[in-house]
Amino acid sequence: MIKVAIIGGSGLTGRELIKILSKHKEAKIRYVTSLEYPGVPVIQVFPGLKGMIDGNFLNAEDEKVYSGVDLAFICLPHGAAMTFVGRFAEKGVKVIDLSADFRIKDPGDYKKWYNKEHAHKELLDEAVYGLPELYRKEIKKARIIANPGCYPTSILLGVIPFIEKNEVESIIIDAKSGISGAGINPTPFNNYMNVSENVIPYNIGRKHRHLGEIEDVLKRAFKANPDIIFTPQITAMARGMLSVIYMKVKKWQDPADVKGMYAEFYKDEPFVRVVDKAGIHNVRNTNFCEICVDGVKESRTLIIISVIDNLVKGASGQAVQNMNIMFGFDEKEGLL
Amino acid sequence: MIKVAIIGGSGLTGRELIKILSKHKEAKIRYVTSLEYPGVPVIQVFPGLKGMIDGNFLNAEDEKVYSGVDLAFICLPHGAAMTFVGRFAEKGVKVIDLSADFRIKDPGDYKKWYNKEHAHKELLDEAVYGLPELYRKEIKKARIIANPGCYPTSILLGVIPFIEKNEVESIIIDAKSGISGAGINPTPFNNYMNVSENVIPYNIGRKHRHLGEIEDVLKRAFKANPDIIFTPQITAMARGMLSVIYMKVKKWQDPADVKGMYAEFYKDEPFVRVVDKAGIHNVRNTNFCEICVDGVKESRTLIIISVIDNLVKGASGQAVQNMNIMFGFDEKEGLL
Amino acid sequence: MIKVAIIGGSGLTGRELIKILSKHKEAKIRYVTSLEYPGVPVIQVFPGLKGMIDGNFLNAEDEKVYSGVDLAFICLPHGAAMTFVGRFAEKGVKVIDLSADFRIKDPGDYKKWYNKEHAHKELLDEAVYGLPELYRKEIKKARIIANPGCYPTSILLGVIPFIEKNEVESIIIDAKSGISGAGINPTPFNNYMNVSENVIPYNIGRKHRHLGEIEDVLKRAFKANPDIIFTPQITAMARGMLSVIYMKVKKWQDPADVKGMYAEFYKDEPFVRVVDKAGIHNVRNTNFCEICVDGVKESRTLIIISVIDNLVKGASGQAVQNMNIMFGFDEKEGLL
Amino acid sequence: MIKVAIIGGSGLTGRELIKILSKHKEAKIRYVTSLEYPGVPVIQVFPGLKGMIDGNFLNAEDEKVYSGVDLAFICLPHGAAMTFVGRFAEKGVKVIDLSADFRIKDPGDYKKWYNKEHAHKELLDEAVYGLPELYRKEIKKARIIANPGCYPTSILLGVIPFIEKNEVESIIIDAKSGISGAGINPTPFNNYMNVSENVIPYNIGRKHRHLGEIEDVLKRAFKANPDIIFTPQITAMARGMLSVIYMKVKKWQDPADVKGMYAEFYKDEPFVRVVDKAGIHNVRNTNFCEICVDGVKESRTLIIISVIDNLVKGASGQAVQNMNIMFGFDEKEGLL
Repeated sequence: MIKVAIIGGSGLTGRELIKILSKHKEAKIRYVTSLEYPGVPVIQVFPGLKGMIDGNFLNAEDEKVYSGVDLAFICLPHGAAMTFVGRFAEKGVKVIDLSADFRIKDPGDYKKWYNKEHAHKELLDEAVYGLPELYRKEIKKARIIANPGCYPTSILLGVIPFIEKNEVESIIIDAKSGISGAGINPTPFNNYMNVSENVIPYNIGRKHRHLGEIEDVLKRAFKANPDIIFTPQITAMARGMLSVIYMKVKKWQDPADVKGMYAEFYKDEPFVRVVDKAGIHNVRNTNFCEICVDGVKESRTLIIISVIDNLVKGASGQAVQNMNIMFGFDEKEGLL
Repeated sequence: MIKVAIIGGSGLTGRELIKILSKHKEAKIRYVTSLEYPGVPVIQVFPGLKGMIDGNFLNAEDEKVYSGVDLAFICLPHGAAMTFVGRFAEKGVKVIDLSADFRIKDPGDYKKWYNKEHAHKELLDEAVYGLPELYRKEIKKARIIANPGCYPTSILLGVIPFIEKNEVESIIIDAKSGISGAGINPTPFNNYMNVSENVIPYNIGRKHRHLGEIEDVLKRAFKANPDIIFTPQITAMARGMLSVIYMKVKKWQDPADVKGMYAEFYKDEPFVRVVDKAGIHNVRNTNFCEICVDGVKESRTLIIISVIDNLVKGASGQAVQNMNIMFGFDEKEGLL
Repeated sequence: MIKVAIIGGSGLTGRELIKILSKHKEAKIRYVTSLEYPGVPVIQVFPGLKGMIDGNFLNAEDEKVYSGVDLAFICLPHGAAMTFVGRFAEKGVKVIDLSADFRIKDPGDYKKWYNKEHAHKELLDEAVYGLPELYRKEIKKARIIANPGCYPTSILLGVIPFIEKNEVESIIIDAKSGISGAGINPTPFNNYMNVSENVIPYNIGRKHRHLGEIEDVLKRAFKANPDIIFTPQITAMARGMLSVIYMKVKKWQDPADVKGMYAEFYKDEPFVRVVDKAGIHNVRNTNFCEICVDGVKESRTLIIISVIDNLVKGASGQAVQNMNIMFGFDEKEGLL
Repeated sequence: MIKVAIIGGSGLTGRELIKILSKHKEAKIRYVTSLEYPGVPVIQVFPGLKGMIDGNFLNAEDEKVYSGVDLAFICLPHGAAMTFVGRFAEKGVKVIDLSADFRIKDPGDYKKWYNKEHAHKELLDEAVYGLPELYRKEIKKARIIANPGCYPTSILLGVIPFIEKNEVESIIIDAKSGISGAGINPTPFNNYMNVSENVIPYNIGRKHRHLGEIEDVLKRAFKANPDIIFTPQITAMARGMLSVIYMKVKKWQDPADVKGMYAEFYKDEPFVRVVDKAGIHNVRNTNFCEICVDGVKESRTLIIISVIDNLVKGASGQAVQNMNIMFGFDEKEGLL
């Protein structure tokens, strides 16, 4: 039984993490910190967690948080997370960072996308991008995990089986996310009156930071550098994510064959299902990703639809999957 | 053609008022002020009003706002509204106050419910409670209108035809409102993640301020003082309001007869419909109130269901109806 | 490890039951039947159950269904369920009937509410009303369980700690349910366009059949016979149920004391939480019931709010809880 | 004042048409027919239309429907509509057909997409495609109008200002519609439980019939024949439509310049707004289309977002706009 700390546990990924870990047989939450609610009982902030966790949020500056744990999950916003990753790493504690701080390997690219100098450039190379379907071997041995973003998870899982061995000219991604992707703090954006009965494109074209992450992985893992357009959109749902990926390929292959290729690629994966029809409701509150393959021959374009729950496979569930791999637990523990 | 000012026009009642007045044949908006957006084009804050209004929000301190208009609508929160009512009244401009500041006539009761000393006690008696179905004659001659709250509108319209001539022992009101009743500012309460797939009771029992308003009207208009319980609730909708009113009567009368009594009472009313089945969707975006009557003989209890659009008949539509009456326009102008 | 059959498994309670049982350590689903989809793979009808269940729906007329199982869950509509209860009982198989067929003990009352002669009157007395908080001892020894309805579950749990020892004059229940309570078949009622942004009262007053069940239990268990009014309502949510219970008592007691009484009553209950603020989101997808207590002294009326997930504690979760009790398993198995 | 008949008025486009025409100063509804509800009062089927229309639905076989009217709106499904278009045309009554039957000019293409022989091939050429922004001159003189589909309206308005004078290589359209696009009849698809918290792609790639209509117009009006991919999707909303159009162009032009081109193209259009940010809420319940222009230079791809209310500009509002043009009324009458 390992002991874990959750830093920044009063946000949505923190809440989801507590929920998952409360049923985990090999890990126990020892500390949960919160910038906004130090000293407040966790279940006062999250009444839905009653019976899953005792105790209060701590202050992340409390020294005890940094010892007596085997693993820390960092659930802070990018920019704030990196310092804590550094602190835990220094103490020899393994870290899974749910922020974007260690996902992009080139500090220049990091600065370009996040508009901030990276404070721990020396750890960037060591941090493993925590997409098990791509980097399971590296995750096993990692000390620091950069847990993938929600959009990149759904999108990369949708393209890598093809892109691994085939050339792609360009990719257009039209992705739809539940509003929980925008975080817990109330804004005019996540107000019910704005979200209900609406579809809201934002960061159209090449403006969303997750694009940097997607391109970084494609380049590093596959030396692939296709033109990418990415239009994220909020639709009227609390959680869930559906990416429609239009992939213009160099050499046409029948979607049925590509589907077979995907099924083969993922055949041993516990959390990816290649299906005829991918559905958000099928993966809600689960760590599964469902993928289906279609296409238009005349346009030499495959149409991949990939769905996940943005808070589970797109965040906290995948974090626990990474923990399971790092510590040699059953990869599915706590996630089925 | 009269000219009107809207004070505090960047909230939801202001937006709805602009929408309605933009089609009104006898009234023209001259000024709209906003505390938060002075100098900003109205349609930048409310893109949905494009084509309905030109110009920018003004500062309410701008002196010109107080002259050259025949009527001012005050769309400010209670507490803030009363000063502006006083200011316009002093200049001889008629006022329709959409806040709660002039609805309760006893300054002690006002203080009890709103926790604040009233700044214009001398105007309280003069201000007419703007429920046309009850006070049309007084509204015609009024200089100041206290426009009713949304819950009181739906509830009073549901009880006055009976209570006018019959004794009532007690009333239990279980009311459901769309989240727009909570205003435009983002809070954890109106966050999509909280409202969606939820029902949220609040101010249970006798805590909601609209109760003071309801009791004040029943007492003044009918010398009625029944025990009242009132449980407001937010359900997953942007706008709309449905009040279920359980009215325990002294002397049982058949619901069919009571329905007839209601139909008779409202027979000349342009905006009240006595129906077999009241539906929120039937009155959405309209100034109508739909009422149906049911009951349980064994419990000597009538069950009245009254529905309105909380932003129209429950706020800005009723304000325009009051304006129409005050200025001798067709009462339905702008509202059909 | 016991083996169970699910009769009528292609509805919402069947789907939920499969989901819960797929993780149960002591029970295994052997057969699932469906009138509409015999021969069709379960996961084709319910893609969200992928990985939880294999095999096809069977025809309920298939003889093998009636042997080789220790327990049958009947998930059919009332009227259709009773025959299958009889059939399994005859074969010596224990039965948990999720329909209303064995909840009301008096065949005359059954006929009054369900407009049908009961086909197995001889089993009515034997069938135990499966509300563990009230009848745990009897459930342990039962051969047939009448699993409670969703409204009755939320309402009875909200009133029995008080009604057990105190006199109640009358009860008004204003209950709100997610649309899943109306079943899986598409109708104008459960069309998205009808449910979204709406609140829909139905069976107002004393028309809903669940009232018969509530009154039957109160009479049998507590010799209590208060006047009851019950107004069910659909609000815009897929699942969840919130009952506001206005209970006029003979002798006033402070809500804080009543809360203490409730906490004491439920102190050993694994699935009831007495809280300060009951929330639908807190119990969604769980077998928990949350109850809070408020009241208005002047009206001698307690206001109890009771929330459940209508498909879990209000149906399939409670059915599994009953199974756990009947077979001596940990009562929480599969439900946490 | 012209007199109109509505054939098939008990569907969603019929309801919307009645709502709009009830306020129209130059047209009066004389007959409304319904296959399902002949003899039933219109407001019994649509309680929200109370006060807007009197009388009952008629049977479309009733001979009087075909005389004494100046114009007929056909609100029937494709396949059923064409016969009635023929019948009215024969009697010399002008017709606006809201179905797809006369949109595609080539009977072979019609058969390909709609799987049915066209029964009035002789009228196909005469019928004018009722997109006023493209065919206003022809509409003025037309006897038969083929009112455009909802997706084609939003998409064509989004591409024609560019495609008129520029070459386009390929177009990928990722469109999101409210569920009202699927009609009024209850199905598993439009069940609240399916639509809520979901995004549902359907007819992926080149399967949706509206594609035939879009390609037909582009070919006839502009001799343009770009490769098109079109993925329609249902999101959790009752009404509204947002199309994201990825248009790969031959020769790159800056989005700001393209925006200017669009603004110029639509400068006299009463119902198209070229904006910085197109929003579904801005056009809800209106006949407006809002369009914004973005793009990615590296991919030589313009990103056009076009929003409408699928039941207004996408159906009944546009039908009334066409009527206004045909009969020489103010084009905006009834629509502002």
